[in-house]
Amino acid sequence: MMADVVLTPAELLETRVYAALVEAGADEPSAAAATRAMMHASKLGVDSHGVRLTPHYSRVLKGGRVNGRPDMTVKENSPVSFALDADHGLGHPAMYKAVDVATDAAARMGIAAVGVHRSSHFGAAGAYAMAGQERGCITICVANSDSIVALFNGAERFHGTNPLAIGIPVPGEKPWLLDMATSSVPMNRVLLYRVLGIQLPEGVAADLAGTPTRDAKEAEMLMPLGGADFGFKGAALAGFISIMSSVVAGATPDPFVIDMVGEDVSTPRNIGHFLIAIHPSFFGGGSNYGEQIKAYLGALRGSRAREGGVMAPGEREWKVEIERAANGIPVDPETAAFLGLA
Amino acid sequence: MMADVVLTPAELLETRVYAALVEAGADEPSAAAATRAMMHASKLGVDSHGVRLTPHYSRVLKGGRVNGRPDMTVKENSPVSFALDADHGLGHPAMYKAVDVATDAAARMGIAAVGVHRSSHFGAAGAYAMAGQERGCITICVANSDSIVALFNGAERFHGTNPLAIGIPVPGEKPWLLDMATSSVPMNRVLLYRVLGIQLPEGVAADLAGTPTRDAKEAEMLMPLGGADFGFKGAALAGFISIMSSVVAGATPDPFVIDMVGEDVSTPRNIGHFLIAIHPSFFGGGSNYGEQIKAYLGALRGSRAREGGVMAPGEREWKVEIERAANGIPVDPETAAFLGLA
Repeated sequence: MMADVVLTPAELLETRVYAALVEAGADEPSAAAATRAMMHASKLGVDSHGVRLTPHYSRVLKGGRVNGRPDMTVKENSPVSFALDADHGLGHPAMYKAVDVATDAAARMGIAAVGVHRSSHFGAAGAYAMAGQERGCITICVANSDSIVALFNGAERFHGTNPLAIGIPVPGEKPWLLDMATSSVPMNRVLLYRVLGIQLPEGVAADLAGTPTRDAKEAEMLMPLGGADFGFKGAALAGFISIMSSVVAGATPDPFVIDMVGEDVSTPRNIGHFLIAIHPSFFGGGSNYGEQIKAYLGALRGSRAREGGVMAPGEREWKVEIERAANGIPVDPETAAFLGLA
Repeated sequence: MMADVVLTPAELLETRVYAALVEAGADEPSAAAATRAMMHASKLGVDSHGVRLTPHYSRVLKGGRVNGRPDMTVKENSPVSFALDADHGLGHPAMYKAVDVATDAAARMGIAAVGVHRSSHFGAAGAYAMAGQERGCITICVANSDSIVALFNGAERFHGTNPLAIGIPVPGEKPWLLDMATSSVPMNRVLLYRVLGIQLPEGVAADLAGTPTRDAKEAEMLMPLGGADFGFKGAALAGFISIMSSVVAGATPDPFVIDMVGEDVSTPRNIGHFLIAIHPSFFGGGSNYGEQIKAYLGALRGSRAREGGVMAPGEREWKVEIERAANGIPVDPETAAFLGLA
């Protein structure tokens, strides 16, 4: 499979992705935002949420599910509380807008939040946590999605893989950056293991009856983080994210969301997101923040390790970023063909 | 062991716990707040954080580590951002104060947060998430603590069990209530399994070299939620909590915090907490919140289950609460003796 992967310089890839989105009907700001978020993921090695999503976005833009020329509106319900109507556009421009609104308010007030409704898939949650921390704020970003993860003790798909991303600025250095699903693995991983014919780890997927299985061919749903013993924790995190993104933000709860990858590419899905920005100097730590976060990270990096060493969230990604900046970004054959790279 | 447990009516227990704290030097507001938080835990079955902590608090109050007559101050850095100096008192009055401050501000502004520094152990984080949701706000409460959990791939104790509690109001019903450690199990569980001579679940604890072990006698540290495969997620959650509670709130990071249970009961620990209150009607869901949260929970309860059924966070606790209201609260023999109940 690796033989067919096309190593592509970031600049070329970016141009092709942007052009494909415009060709599919996205206006300039929408195409630019989606390209930025996908390139974030592709540069850092999060390929599931990288440029391979371009054909999908193209399909749903052309199908009418996603509005390529959205008229987004931001309702300011207080100086720190906002509701963003994404007008069924791509999730990416809505979330970059949410980052700007929330971080501007948090810089003045210490904390602010934006709920986003009538949105759609936004790619990697980490892209917005990254953008928020670049603007000096600790940034928490969540979203709901279509059902694929069982509840704890559940026997059907209920929550989505509902991501949690957090970006924490480290002045003068790469940030602390988390981008995690509230399941242990994404469904893509299960599909990959199916093709490769290898066993799944314990407690990441379940069969049609909700019974944990390591057989990727039997896997019908994912299990929440924590697995068969402690999955009530992962399920609760997914539930919190679902409530913030749907009930509080005014979007559709996971079990009622139309499948991302399905026949229907014309009906809008009304996905929701929620973003909180926190300026670190308003809560007692004061102006000392830069020194203190570095002292914490210094202690972490000096902590005794087993094989592989210890890393702060994001450090694995910064290594990939350097490697890919030197060698190019691997693009899978199907996406490479779609983008005219192969 | 069960034979020696003393089933005690809540009112009697509450009176004895309060009196013991006052006897140890706590002023009325401090004793009342700590009693309230411990009774929350004891009523709901969270016995690790219930009245069994009374002898510990008595010891540290008498030792001088904890100030029984704190002069707490709240610095308002903006209408939604606050820094609370707990003056080395019990964590409980500081956090109930933080709940009041944050929910008052969030009711006006939609979102608000309080960092707490120069604090100490606050018992069950869920007590404050519960109190915040009673005041109509989605309430997120975190705290750092002394090192006991290894990093992912770590071979020494680094983070505390750093709790995450979230309370979500459900108008006219019991709330959605999560109170979880970011390790899979608390150290108490390991100590209990040691005594009982039974094996631990996979991936919850590690030996002195950081190698996962199921032998409770070999267990030297806990592992983060997610275990040997996905513990980078639990470690990241613990790290986020540690950063918010120490770096941002102005308290001491976990690795530098004095052990909770140790020889030194005279030196203040400077534990930190962070609390966010979010009023659900400011972010797009609007005035529809009550109906929408109930629709979500209705879908959850109707979701197909394996053995045991599916539950929303908190539902197990409400069942215990009813049972204990009828039969009394089980108090372990040592605590019962301390409180003059046995």
